[in-house]
Amino acid sequence: MIKVGVIGYGYWGPNVARNFYSCQGVKLTAISDVSEKRLALAKSHYPFIQDFKNAADLVRSKDVDVVAVVTPVFTHFGVARDALNQGKHVFVEKPFTSTKAQAEELIDLAAKKGLKIMVDHTFLFTGAVRKIKQIIDSGELGRLLFFDSVRVNLGLFQHDINVIWDLAPHDLSIMDYVIPDRPVAVSAHGSVHFEGNLEDVAYVCTEFENHGFIAHFHVNWLSPVKIRRMLISGDKKMLVWDDLSPDDKIKIYDRGVEFTSTNGQLKNGIEELLVSYRSGDMYAPKIDNTEALRAEVDYFVRCLEKNEEPFNDGRAGLQVVRLLEAADQSVKNNGRRIKL
Amino acid sequence: MIKVGVIGYGYWGPNVARNFYSCQGVKLTAISDVSEKRLALAKSHYPFIQDFKNAADLVRSKDVDVVAVVTPVFTHFGVARDALNQGKHVFVEKPFTSTKAQAEELIDLAAKKGLKIMVDHTFLFTGAVRKIKQIIDSGELGRLLFFDSVRVNLGLFQHDINVIWDLAPHDLSIMDYVIPDRPVAVSAHGSVHFEGNLEDVAYVCTEFENHGFIAHFHVNWLSPVKIRRMLISGDKKMLVWDDLSPDDKIKIYDRGVEFTSTNGQLKNGIEELLVSYRSGDMYAPKIDNTEALRAEVDYFVRCLEKNEEPFNDGRAGLQVVRLLEAADQSVKNNGRRIKL
Amino acid sequence: MIKVGVIGYGYWGPNVARNFYSCQGVKLTAISDVSEKRLALAKSHYPFIQDFKNAADLVRSKDVDVVAVVTPVFTHFGVARDALNQGKHVFVEKPFTSTKAQAEELIDLAAKKGLKIMVDHTFLFTGAVRKIKQIIDSGELGRLLFFDSVRVNLGLFQHDINVIWDLAPHDLSIMDYVIPDRPVAVSAHGSVHFEGNLEDVAYVCTEFENHGFIAHFHVNWLSPVKIRRMLISGDKKMLVWDDLSPDDKIKIYDRGVEFTSTNGQLKNGIEELLVSYRSGDMYAPKIDNTEALRAEVDYFVRCLEKNEEPFNDGRAGLQVVRLLEAADQSVKNNGRRIKL
Amino acid sequence: MIKVGVIGYGYWGPNVARNFYSCQGVKLTAISDVSEKRLALAKSHYPFIQDFKNAADLVRSKDVDVVAVVTPVFTHFGVARDALNQGKHVFVEKPFTSTKAQAEELIDLAAKKGLKIMVDHTFLFTGAVRKIKQIIDSGELGRLLFFDSVRVNLGLFQHDINVIWDLAPHDLSIMDYVIPDRPVAVSAHGSVHFEGNLEDVAYVCTEFENHGFIAHFHVNWLSPVKIRRMLISGDKKMLVWDDLSPDDKIKIYDRGVEFTSTNGQLKNGIEELLVSYRSGDMYAPKIDNTEALRAEVDYFVRCLEKNEEPFNDGRAGLQVVRLLEAADQSVKNNGRRIKL
Repeated sequence: MIKVGVIGYGYWGPNVARNFYSCQGVKLTAISDVSEKRLALAKSHYPFIQDFKNAADLVRSKDVDVVAVVTPVFTHFGVARDALNQGKHVFVEKPFTSTKAQAEELIDLAAKKGLKIMVDHTFLFTGAVRKIKQIIDSGELGRLLFFDSVRVNLGLFQHDINVIWDLAPHDLSIMDYVIPDRPVAVSAHGSVHFEGNLEDVAYVCTEFENHGFIAHFHVNWLSPVKIRRMLISGDKKMLVWDDLSPDDKIKIYDRGVEFTSTNGQLKNGIEELLVSYRSGDMYAPKIDNTEALRAEVDYFVRCLEKNEEPFNDGRAGLQVVRLLEAADQSVKNNGRRIKL
Repeated sequence: MIKVGVIGYGYWGPNVARNFYSCQGVKLTAISDVSEKRLALAKSHYPFIQDFKNAADLVRSKDVDVVAVVTPVFTHFGVARDALNQGKHVFVEKPFTSTKAQAEELIDLAAKKGLKIMVDHTFLFTGAVRKIKQIIDSGELGRLLFFDSVRVNLGLFQHDINVIWDLAPHDLSIMDYVIPDRPVAVSAHGSVHFEGNLEDVAYVCTEFENHGFIAHFHVNWLSPVKIRRMLISGDKKMLVWDDLSPDDKIKIYDRGVEFTSTNGQLKNGIEELLVSYRSGDMYAPKIDNTEALRAEVDYFVRCLEKNEEPFNDGRAGLQVVRLLEAADQSVKNNGRRIKL
Repeated sequence: MIKVGVIGYGYWGPNVARNFYSCQGVKLTAISDVSEKRLALAKSHYPFIQDFKNAADLVRSKDVDVVAVVTPVFTHFGVARDALNQGKHVFVEKPFTSTKAQAEELIDLAAKKGLKIMVDHTFLFTGAVRKIKQIIDSGELGRLLFFDSVRVNLGLFQHDINVIWDLAPHDLSIMDYVIPDRPVAVSAHGSVHFEGNLEDVAYVCTEFENHGFIAHFHVNWLSPVKIRRMLISGDKKMLVWDDLSPDDKIKIYDRGVEFTSTNGQLKNGIEELLVSYRSGDMYAPKIDNTEALRAEVDYFVRCLEKNEEPFNDGRAGLQVVRLLEAADQSVKNNGRRIKL
Repeated sequence: MIKVGVIGYGYWGPNVARNFYSCQGVKLTAISDVSEKRLALAKSHYPFIQDFKNAADLVRSKDVDVVAVVTPVFTHFGVARDALNQGKHVFVEKPFTSTKAQAEELIDLAAKKGLKIMVDHTFLFTGAVRKIKQIIDSGELGRLLFFDSVRVNLGLFQHDINVIWDLAPHDLSIMDYVIPDRPVAVSAHGSVHFEGNLEDVAYVCTEFENHGFIAHFHVNWLSPVKIRRMLISGDKKMLVWDDLSPDDKIKIYDRGVEFTSTNGQLKNGIEELLVSYRSGDMYAPKIDNTEALRAEVDYFVRCLEKNEEPFNDGRAGLQVVRLLEAADQSVKNNGRRIKL
C-alpha cells in the first residue's frame, strides 16, 4: 500500500487527491494547504487524513511515501527538494520548476536517492494525445512538415506567471511526446497589456534541425473565443485535433502534396516543377474517454510498484522548462533566437 | 467614357475584366495575354475587344485610358511603369510590386504624370472589412490589444512567390486599413518543405510603438483544413471574423478584462491587483454581400471621374510591400527583428 | 428545517439528493432504493441518513416532510399517492405519471390534504429556458409562427417506456412553459425497430387553435449524431436554441417576412401580393449557468416555506402527461389526430 | 447534333440553357420567355438563338429536337404535352406536373410517340447523393431504420405553390432514388401564416411496408437559420449528410445498437433484453464536386443518343408527384393518413 500526501488543495489539488484516493493500491494519508479554509474543505472530503498547514510538516510525516506537489510554480522546487531529501517520491504539477537549473538539481537528487519524479503533464494521458502519438509513430502521416497549436480563451490571469508558463506547458509537453525530433532553437513574441508586467498574449516558434519541420504555439488570455486546436501535417496525411469539438475531435485527412521535378534537366526552373494534390477520404478515429488524470495516477503507481521510470519523468519536465525558459528569454529580447 | 485595357487573362483577370465591363461609365476595349489560348477565351467572352499578345502593345493603344495589370508579381513593376509612361492610369494586382524601391518609383512617376494608381486589395471592399473598420473607428472595442490572423488551407503552390507574398497581402492590407497605428518592426519565421526553395508555411509578427499592441499572421499552404479567421480584441469588446462561416461572419463579444490596483499601497504585489471579467451579450451585425471587386472597380472609376485619390493607392500598396519585404528578410535571417 | 427523503438512488437520484443536501433550510434525512448496492452507495455519500429498502417505509418515517420520487415512471403514481396519504409533500420525477387519470387523482389528493406537488421539469430552470420565456413574454418575437424541437442521439434504450415518454417530456414541458397558447390536438408517428415493442423514433405534431401556430417534436434514440435544437419563429424576430453549442446557445435573429397586399384590388392574385424580407443583426444574450436542478430545488423549498404553489406543479405535470398520452394513442393508431 | 430549345428564362432557365449550350453534341437553338426583358437577356447571352415570346411557337420550331420546360409548375403539363405532340423530347423542371393524372398522361403520350421525358431532379446528380446511393446499395449501413430530412431557411415565398411543392421534391426524389423500398402511406401537417393560403411550414411523414422503416421531411420557409441535413440510420452504420458543411458533407458513423434476447426464456421481460452499443470510427468519403446540372444534362443527351431510358424519367417524376399530392391531401385533412 503506497501512502500519498497532497500539498496544495486549491484549484487542481482536489482532482489529484480524488484520483489518488480512488486508485488501487494507494492510501491517501495527508493533505496540506496554507489556507485554513481549503484545509477544512479537504478534511470534510477526507475526514481520515492528517492535515498540515505547512508543507514542510507533511513531507516529514512517516505516513507519506509519495508527495504530490500541487502548489504555485515558484514553490515547486523547494517543496520537491524537501520531499526528495525526506526520501519521498514526488508527483509535481506542471511546469516542473521555474528554471532549468532547478529541474536538473531535482533530477540529480532523485537519482542519488533512488526516488522517482513524475511531472503532471496530464494531457499526455488523454485518449486524444495517445491516439495522435500512435498515429505519428505508425508513420501514417509520412514525413512531418509542421506542428501548429492554438490555445486561447478569455483566461484567468495568473499573478505569478505569464501566459507562456501558464498555458504552453500543455502544448510543449504534447509536442515533446508525439514528435520524434527535438527543437534546436526558440523564438517568441509576447505582449503585456495590463499592470503586473506579465505577458498575456504570446507566440512561440521552435526550429528543428532537419527537413524544415517547424512548431508554433499561440497562447492567449485575451481571446473572445476559446480555441484548442492542433494541426499536424505530414506529406502523406494531415491531422487536426479540435479538443472542443463534441464529436470527432481528431480528424485525419488523406490529403497531401506531391512534387516531382525533372532533376538536372530544368529549363526555366518553373514549368518543370510538377505539383500534384491528393485529396481523399477523412476519418475520425474513436477516442478513449477515460479521465486522463486517473490514467496518469494509475500509471505512476504502477511505475512505483514495479520500480520503473515513468516516461513523463523529471527529464520530460526539464525539456518543457528548457523551452519555457528559452521562450521567456526570447520575449524579453524582442524575439531574439535562443539556441537550445 | 473611360476606356480600360486588361493585361493578363489567367485566374483573376476574367473577374477584373467582367467587373470593368459591367461598370457604368466604362468601356472595356482591350485585353492582352501571353497565352494564345487565354486570349482566344477573352475574345470569345468579349468579341469587340482589341486583343494583344504583348502587354507593351496594349499600353500603347489609343483606345486605353486605364490599364489593369493582372500578371505575375515580378512583372507588375515593368508593365505599370510602361503604362504610366504612356499616360495611363493603372490598377495593379496585389502585391503592388516585388520591392519597396519599385513601389516608390511608380508612386513618384504617377505623381509626376498626374496619374492614379489603385492597388487591388479586394478584401478592403468586402462588407465584412468595411464593417470591421466602422466598428473599430467608432471606438466600440476600446483600446486595441491584439490582432491575430490565420489564413491557411491546402493551397495552390505558386512558382514565383512564397506563401507570405501569396497570402499575407490580404491580411496585411486589412490590418493597415482597420488599425490606426503603424507597425515599427517585423519578425517572421517560415519553412521550406519541398523543392523550389519557397516557404510554404510562415508566421509573421509585427510590433507597434505603444500600448503593447501586437499583430500576428499565420499563412500556410499545407493545412488540411481551410481557416480564415481574425481575432481583434479591445479592452472593451472583442471581435471575431470567421470568413468561412455561412452566417454571422463577424461576432462582437461584450467581453473584457478589468484591472484595478490599489496604487502605491501594494502589500505583496499579488493580492492587491484586482482582476474582474465582464461577459455579456454577443451580437453579429448584418454584413453587406455586394461583390467586393465590383465595389472596388466602381470606386476606382468614381475616383478617376472626380480626380480624387483612392485610399488604396500606391502608398497603401507600398505599405504592404514594405511589410512583405521585411518579413522575407526576417525569414531569411532566422527570425531576426527588422525595424521599419 | 424541512426534512427530505429521496426514493430511488439510480441514475438521477444522486443529483436530487445532492441538491437537497446542499440546499439552505433542508435536512436530507432518508434514502431508499430496491438495490442494496445503490443503497450502500447512498449511505457512503451521506452516512447520517436513514436507509430503507422499501419506499413504503420511507414515506412513513417521521423524519420526512417531503418525498422526492426518483423511480421508474410506472411506480410514480403508487409511491406519490402513498406519500401524500402520509401527509408528505412530493417532488416527482418527469413524466409525472403514466396516465392522465393518475395525475388528476394525485392533484386532487394533494389539494384535499393541503400538500404541494412539484414535477421535476428540470429544463425549466436552465438559464436558456428562462431567457427564452423572458424573450417571448416581452413580445420581442412578435406573433409566434411555429415551434420546432429536435432531441436526437444514439440513446440509452429504456425498457419500460418508449422514446416519446423518455425524451419528449423535456420539450413538451418547455413548450408548455414558454408558449402562451395551449394545443388542441396531437398527431404522432413512431416506429419500432427492435424487440420489445417500444418506439425508438417518433415525430409528434401539436395543433393550436389560432393563427396557424404549430409545434413539432422529433425524438430519436437511433441518431448517429446528437442534436438538441429548437427553432421558435415569430413574425418580428426568430430564435434558435442550440443546447450543445459551447457558446451562444441562444441566438435571436432580426429576420422576418412582411406581407402587404393591395386589398380588394387584386388583378391576378399573384403579382399583387407583395412580400418583403427583413434581415438584420443577430444577437446572443448571455445565459445564466447556474445548475438547473439546484435552482429548482431551492425554488421548491422556498414555495414550501412561503406556502406558495410552484408553477411546475401537478397541473404542469398533468399537461405534459396529457400530451404524451395523446401522442401514444396517435402512434398506435397510425397518426390519427387526437383532440385534447 | 441535338437541337435544344429552352422555355422559361427566369431563375433556373439560364442555368439549364448554359449547360445545354456547353454540352458536347448539343446545339442550343431557341429560347422563349413571356417577359421581354428576360428574352432580351437570353438574346444577349446567346446572340445566335431564335427567340420566342410564346412557348407554343418554340415547340413548333423545326430547329428544336428537345424542349426544356423551365416554367412555373402549373404550366408544365400544357407545355410538355404540346412539345410531345410536336414530336419533341422533353426535359421538365421538378416537380414534374401539378397532378398524378397529368404525369400519367404525359408518360403515356411519350411512350406512344417513342419520345423521352427527363424530370430535372438535379440533386440526384450531385456527388453527395451518388455517394449515398452507392453506400446504401453496398449494404454498408445494414438494415435501414429511418430517413430524416430537414430543408429549412428563410425562403423565397412562391406565389403559386406551397412549401411542400417548392422544397420537398428535392428530398422526395432523393429518398425515391436511394431507398430501395416504396412508401405505402403519407401523413402531413402544415401551417399557413400569411395571406395567400399557402402552407409555409410543413412536416411530411411516409410509412413503408416492412421493418418499421420510416421517412420524415421538414420543409420550412420561416426558419431563421438554413439547415440542409439528412440522417439515414441503419443497424450497422449511420449516415449524416450536411449539405452546408464546407468540408466532410457526408459522414458515416460506425455506430449501432445490438439487441440480444434470451428468446422464450424471459423472466420479467425487462432484464432479459440485452442492449449493447457500438461506437467506432467515423469517416467522410471524398465527394465529387462536378456541377450536378452539367452531369445531368450530359446524361440526358447520352440517353437520347443511345436511345436509352433515363432513370429520372417520367415515372420517377410521377412517383414524386404522387407523394406531393398525397401530402397536400393529408395537410388539407388535418394530417389524415393517405394510402398510396
